[in-house]
Amino acid sequence: MATTMKPTAKPFLALADAFRSGKDSPSALLARCFEAIDAREKELQVFTAINREGATAAAEASSKRWREGKPLSPVDGMPIGVKDVIESRDMPTQMGSALFAGHNTGFDSASVRALREAGAVIVGKTVTTEFAATEPGPTRNPWDTERTPGGSSSGSAAGVAAGYFCAALGTQVVGSILRPASYCGVFGMKPSIGAINRGGSMDHMSQSAQGVLSATMADGWAVLRAIADRAGGDPGFPGLYGPVSVPTASKPRALALLETTGWAETGQEAKAQLEAAAKRLRDAGVAVLTRRDNADIEAAEVALQRAMVLTRKINAWESRWPLNTFSDRDASKLSQTMRDRLKEAEALTLDEYRANIAEREKVRGIYARMASVVDASITLSAPAEAPVGIKATGNPVYVVPGTLLGVPVASLPVLSCQGLPLGLQVIGYRDKDGELMATAASIEAIVGTGMAVRA
Amino acid sequence: MATTMKPTAKPFLALADAFRSGKDSPSALLARCFEAIDAREKELQVFTAINREGATAAAEASSKRWREGKPLSPVDGMPIGVKDVIESRDMPTQMGSALFAGHNTGFDSASVRALREAGAVIVGKTVTTEFAATEPGPTRNPWDTERTPGGSSSGSAAGVAAGYFCAALGTQVVGSILRPASYCGVFGMKPSIGAINRGGSMDHMSQSAQGVLSATMADGWAVLRAIADRAGGDPGFPGLYGPVSVPTASKPRALALLETTGWAETGQEAKAQLEAAAKRLRDAGVAVLTRRDNADIEAAEVALQRAMVLTRKINAWESRWPLNTFSDRDASKLSQTMRDRLKEAEALTLDEYRANIAEREKVRGIYARMASVVDASITLSAPAEAPVGIKATGNPVYVVPGTLLGVPVASLPVLSCQGLPLGLQVIGYRDKDGELMATAASIEAIVGTGMAVRA
Repeated sequence: MATTMKPTAKPFLALADAFRSGKDSPSALLARCFEAIDAREKELQVFTAINREGATAAAEASSKRWREGKPLSPVDGMPIGVKDVIESRDMPTQMGSALFAGHNTGFDSASVRALREAGAVIVGKTVTTEFAATEPGPTRNPWDTERTPGGSSSGSAAGVAAGYFCAALGTQVVGSILRPASYCGVFGMKPSIGAINRGGSMDHMSQSAQGVLSATMADGWAVLRAIADRAGGDPGFPGLYGPVSVPTASKPRALALLETTGWAETGQEAKAQLEAAAKRLRDAGVAVLTRRDNADIEAAEVALQRAMVLTRKINAWESRWPLNTFSDRDASKLSQTMRDRLKEAEALTLDEYRANIAEREKVRGIYARMASVVDASITLSAPAEAPVGIKATGNPVYVVPGTLLGVPVASLPVLSCQGLPLGLQVIGYRDKDGELMATAASIEAIVGTGMAVRA
Repeated sequence: MATTMKPTAKPFLALADAFRSGKDSPSALLARCFEAIDAREKELQVFTAINREGATAAAEASSKRWREGKPLSPVDGMPIGVKDVIESRDMPTQMGSALFAGHNTGFDSASVRALREAGAVIVGKTVTTEFAATEPGPTRNPWDTERTPGGSSSGSAAGVAAGYFCAALGTQVVGSILRPASYCGVFGMKPSIGAINRGGSMDHMSQSAQGVLSATMADGWAVLRAIADRAGGDPGFPGLYGPVSVPTASKPRALALLETTGWAETGQEAKAQLEAAAKRLRDAGVAVLTRRDNADIEAAEVALQRAMVLTRKINAWESRWPLNTFSDRDASKLSQTMRDRLKEAEALTLDEYRANIAEREKVRGIYARMASVVDASITLSAPAEAPVGIKATGNPVYVVPGTLLGVPVASLPVLSCQGLPLGLQVIGYRDKDGELMATAASIEAIVGTGMAVRA
């Protein structure tokens, strides 16, 4: 039987004063998370594994630190879910694949280890599609259990929305953070390529990024900051740029409203929502330009038409390994989708791959030229609300451009469609993650009143 | 009791005609490898694991393909050793660490999978220092068993020299391919950063590269080409550039003779060897310039003085993870060196790391300017022959510059010191791996007669 309801996410940073004064504690917060989990996990199926004992002990230690006025970081005590392609020493990492049933390396990923060091409370591992790609898991959308939460970070988004934890780690190589953020009505951010260390995560592709889903933008930023300060970015990358606490809202001079190839697949209500958001921004004194206003924006729109085709080809070649060794082990434990992808990969050549990444560089260069025109771009995060059914994770058409570009992107839970959540996407420039957040904070403040989804 | 002798490596590509005609076969070659192994493995301790059955079956299948005139690639049937930080599905990957005793992922690394696809015969896993860093394994130098083979690719170099296999995979983040190549008198090549896919190898640092040690330059190039064509480079990198077969020798116009900080630590005999090599090159019409001849070379020499300091700091930060999660599991199974490195890493900050990689980029830029002056640089691969003792793997001072630069570097087994092998290092330019090999082939032809080590 379907459940439709407005779920309640759990902001974290706002509790700091109560933690300090003793009115609240990470242990009490975790208990509220467990309540939410106990109430809905049977129908939502967010977790692949949960470590109540470990989380309880971590929350107790954190409560003590807050009481003593010595939290390890702003996220000390924050309950966090971890997408199940990211390793954690205390739980298996099964990657949504039968091939990895029960698999446990016994080590933490760079991000999980950094979060533990910062005092965060790792609650459990969250459902992912197979290898963070296409084949969906069992998770349902907390707003309407007949609908997909989106993928591949399905459990992470659903769990944040349902108040299971305050934030969750996700990964994105096509649309895997921002799409579920949009469908589940939570904040999502995919940082710049290389900004967050991907060590210990099945997340090796050149467009892939590790990022966050959270109740609020401030919470999400704090999680990313905590990781980057302790684990850095990928080796050779400068790591997440931006301030220690959440960037102060900074009103943009001008924004591009990108249509992308998604526009043709988008219904009237979603388009009207985006246009209404643009109107609010214009009313607040922000120039909102489109392809019809500016040649650089038009050039970016044209270049980004190839985003999905290029992304698929690049990802296919980069999946040749390890899919071939996975297949050697037991091809019957791979989905048909994965077997098909391996076939596609084996038909590609290194020369074709070089041409594809060279074309990607060209598209990135064209997009980067917009920096002299607009502070960021906005568009929808999805063509509509979460579709009915859990056999597919929805359309990534709007989020693939930001992935191809390797730039920081946030999805703000400020629009709606059919009374369900729809994200407003804000796309920044490479390694300007702090600036993107400052712009997004301003956009959220301007747009985010009165367009909320149904209660 | 010490053994001193001139070991005999086994070239491979030269056997192709005999394989085709049936005068020889990969199975017969493998049998000769097993003979070499049986004769010396007890004293040399090259392997951490050996798969005779698997190798025998692979060699038989290859022999059949050659008989039928259908080899899968130029390296079809080539016996290969795999450094034990690189995963193979049929043997454990223990990384020279007690923490990983018996560890087996059950999957092949990208490189091993590509080599199998190309028909190569994976013979065994070879001794590495702990995590390819400092703490040595038990391997001894085939030229003199009282001496180190160098590290960290200790078993790979010793095994090639002793004729256990024709080529071996190595990795280098300081001096781990070129130093053992020098000490063991074999060809070694560290390709450009990102040129060979490191997937499935404990080899994650930003200066780290996977490369090859082999009996001949042509064999080494064929191995790298076979991997790159099937597994590409690291995700996002264009992969190994260069021709299908070994590049034709191309006589350089001009070379830089780099002294580096190693010069002060180098004895008269080694210096005289390098100077004699330079004389042969000059006699053959190649300009050999030094810091005293050219301001760009002088600038590079000065910039590279920081190579070791920068490399150590960059590697330390990039080792913070996974050493911290390794330590969480069981710190007592890490060497003191590794525990010290973790402490050093934990004292570093992301900002310091950013400054270090920015300085590295600057050094790389200074070096790259030499391209308008010289086709490549030459220098020694080590200050002397392999030192006595196996408790340390020797001085990497000469090879760290090429690692920091991320450029392709070859070590040619054409010099000697105290009657033992000493490598001549040839350093190229980023992603010009084919050009570097063409230059090195010419240098080997010019220098490589009459400077050989004692028989």
